[in-house]
Amino acid sequence: MKAAESSDFSTTPLVGCGPLIPARTTQGRGLKQQIFECIRAVGEIPRVSIAKELSVSAGSVTSLTAELIDDGLIREIEVSKRDEDSGRGRPPVSLGVQQDAGFVAGLRLSDYRHTAVIIDFAGNSLGQASEDADKLHHSFDEILVAADTVLASALADAGKSIDDLAAVGVGLPGLVDHGTGRVPWSPVIRERDTTLRETLSARIGCPVTVDNDANMVTLAELWFGAGRSLNNFASITIEHGIGMGLVLDHQIYRGAGGLGTEIGHTKVQLDGALCRCGQRGCLEAYVADYALVREAYTALNLGKSDTGLPHAILERLYEQAKQGNDSARAIFHRAGRYLALGLANIVNLFDPSLILLSGERMKYDYLYAEEVLTDMSNLILQTGRPPPRVETHAWGGLVWARGAAALALDHATKAAIKT
Amino acid sequence: MKAAESSDFSTTPLVGCGPLIPARTTQGRGLKQQIFECIRAVGEIPRVSIAKELSVSAGSVTSLTAELIDDGLIREIEVSKRDEDSGRGRPPVSLGVQQDAGFVAGLRLSDYRHTAVIIDFAGNSLGQASEDADKLHHSFDEILVAADTVLASALADAGKSIDDLAAVGVGLPGLVDHGTGRVPWSPVIRERDTTLRETLSARIGCPVTVDNDANMVTLAELWFGAGRSLNNFASITIEHGIGMGLVLDHQIYRGAGGLGTEIGHTKVQLDGALCRCGQRGCLEAYVADYALVREAYTALNLGKSDTGLPHAILERLYEQAKQGNDSARAIFHRAGRYLALGLANIVNLFDPSLILLSGERMKYDYLYAEEVLTDMSNLILQTGRPPPRVETHAWGGLVWARGAAALALDHATKAAIKT
Repeated sequence: MKAAESSDFSTTPLVGCGPLIPARTTQGRGLKQQIFECIRAVGEIPRVSIAKELSVSAGSVTSLTAELIDDGLIREIEVSKRDEDSGRGRPPVSLGVQQDAGFVAGLRLSDYRHTAVIIDFAGNSLGQASEDADKLHHSFDEILVAADTVLASALADAGKSIDDLAAVGVGLPGLVDHGTGRVPWSPVIRERDTTLRETLSARIGCPVTVDNDANMVTLAELWFGAGRSLNNFASITIEHGIGMGLVLDHQIYRGAGGLGTEIGHTKVQLDGALCRCGQRGCLEAYVADYALVREAYTALNLGKSDTGLPHAILERLYEQAKQGNDSARAIFHRAGRYLALGLANIVNLFDPSLILLSGERMKYDYLYAEEVLTDMSNLILQTGRPPPRVETHAWGGLVWARGAAALALDHATKAAIKT
Repeated sequence: MKAAESSDFSTTPLVGCGPLIPARTTQGRGLKQQIFECIRAVGEIPRVSIAKELSVSAGSVTSLTAELIDDGLIREIEVSKRDEDSGRGRPPVSLGVQQDAGFVAGLRLSDYRHTAVIIDFAGNSLGQASEDADKLHHSFDEILVAADTVLASALADAGKSIDDLAAVGVGLPGLVDHGTGRVPWSPVIRERDTTLRETLSARIGCPVTVDNDANMVTLAELWFGAGRSLNNFASITIEHGIGMGLVLDHQIYRGAGGLGTEIGHTKVQLDGALCRCGQRGCLEAYVADYALVREAYTALNLGKSDTGLPHAILERLYEQAKQGNDSARAIFHRAGRYLALGLANIVNLFDPSLILLSGERMKYDYLYAEEVLTDMSNLILQTGRPPPRVETHAWGGLVWARGAAALALDHATKAAIKT
């Protein structure tokens, strides 16, 4: 730590040492892209409503939607009459996405199951696949093979080939650098700092975009779920790890350097429980599935022969807790208390209007749900306002892959739209 | 926690349930304001450099600077020749802020000392004052009187009266809602949810703007200090409490609801040490001055008669630590370890390019500085990149008030500029 010279600024006037105003980042989306996104979001929408929605002139909408029709991205849809009193004049026309304008795939690579979906440019699901992982940790080569396999299965299910795809989105846990496409660390890949995007893209011959899997769920919530009308919310995923996605100003916030919002690895105890990242005291080491599983060995008197994938052991622990096994209940109880602490920290730092909890673990949430909310309320600063809303979304496993597909869709349609 | 119906989204197509694109927030600053800020930041700058700096046409700069001159906010300055070879043609002219266009005050109300500064629109300091607080907690009425007193002293020092002020900025610790001007909770005000801005403004007859005092230091760093060339950084203040200001995209981020970035009250230990906010396990309860002071009573064998303001006891503790008192050293050591944990959590969540540490405590930092940096590096996720830079700024007490004055200046000049 280098200490600057102690000063009150009192020897120098404030003027002359201030900032040059730096160029602000622009929103980075052209109006044509915004119009396309509006049509995709709503499904079917007349031109006049687009103009109103985006506060732009009818003329701009007319000329840009004409270009989008020429590009083959959208089409006119004659709206069926809903009442009898019409019948004269021009039939009302809406715009919709040209479904077969393109197709994308979304993949989620995880600890114990890889999933994939194929969707068209309008967001319709055409096929899906799910492959159990045969182990928790993969070499980089193995994860590439696993990605190939689950993608091929989903393509087969959709009756499509790899050549039909405009882009592939891939989500996985850990530190994933969306900007560079590298993976500095992931619990599912043994090697560090792998070039996932580049390698996978060359291998399957299609543009690839990668991101942290919690951001995938967040994107699914933002595009299709509870977050679609919100400017800001936090999405926390609890499965084999703890993930977080944060939406600020209707966009995913990834931290200034692209590798932030790692709530699972914030420290909640000095010299605390060992985390699979190799450090001690991470929130994840008290709340994630693997943290519960390792205590389950004690609570359930399991021996070395009781091996199996974590979710099977967790299922047994849950059964025991329901049947009144105090040790099993204590494990869920402590996890709930730490979860409350983690949520309270999110509130104290980001002050979001909504927190969404999801991930497979949430199917056990009734064991501790009420306590978690009460604990959280007691651990946030008392602002005089009610605590933020907390919603649990027990989505099935495919929501992750659908979020990855949304990322791919975003990428592919931006590339397709000539601005 | 209300659980949504379990679903894979598989029964509904993704289309039709997406977001209507919400209106984005605009940058909210007109070009005229940007030009004025550019001139204020640089001190003296020719028109052509402003156009280059802001990437706008020379014509726009010419017409808007003419308006600013008419408004009395800026003036032309003939630049003195620096070399001999000139002498022909039009003399070079720069623009500078019209210093006496207006004056503002900045106040910081704190646990043990209230400070105030008076500056002109160009940022030059004209006067200052510092008043020791006679107690740590004030009633709302007492804090209003304290604000009056220190403001009057600073005005007297500057040879100005309250009628000369265009605005007053006030910073204080705790939960301060910049948007509404209310103070839901502050350690220096006994009552909760006080209407500080409104009451003070009516009392002194001048527009008032309020904010958390850590944001004031952050603003001072952003406008006049190490942050002026950075798009993002975190500023942590350690005194009687732990404050945090976060800059994202060259603007102070206050959390979605306006009361975020409360790092001092994130929980780092379940059921941990008691914090003055009334909760347990807050980072502040291990790192802030008051946390050290209460342990000092044990380390220094102090009795009930050893009363005094916290910083005096802290000074004694520091002396003992320097002289080798193991208990005293252990207190600083633990505070340093928790500080490292807090900094690591900031890195894991916000991934900033720079962390600035400031506040009076930092004068003791050599006791644990190296250890803190090493600990922090060991507690952040290993991304393959070096950890962010950490700088210690042992500013004197007036930097807080100067930040408050910057906030007032921002407020006042925005009001003065007719857009």
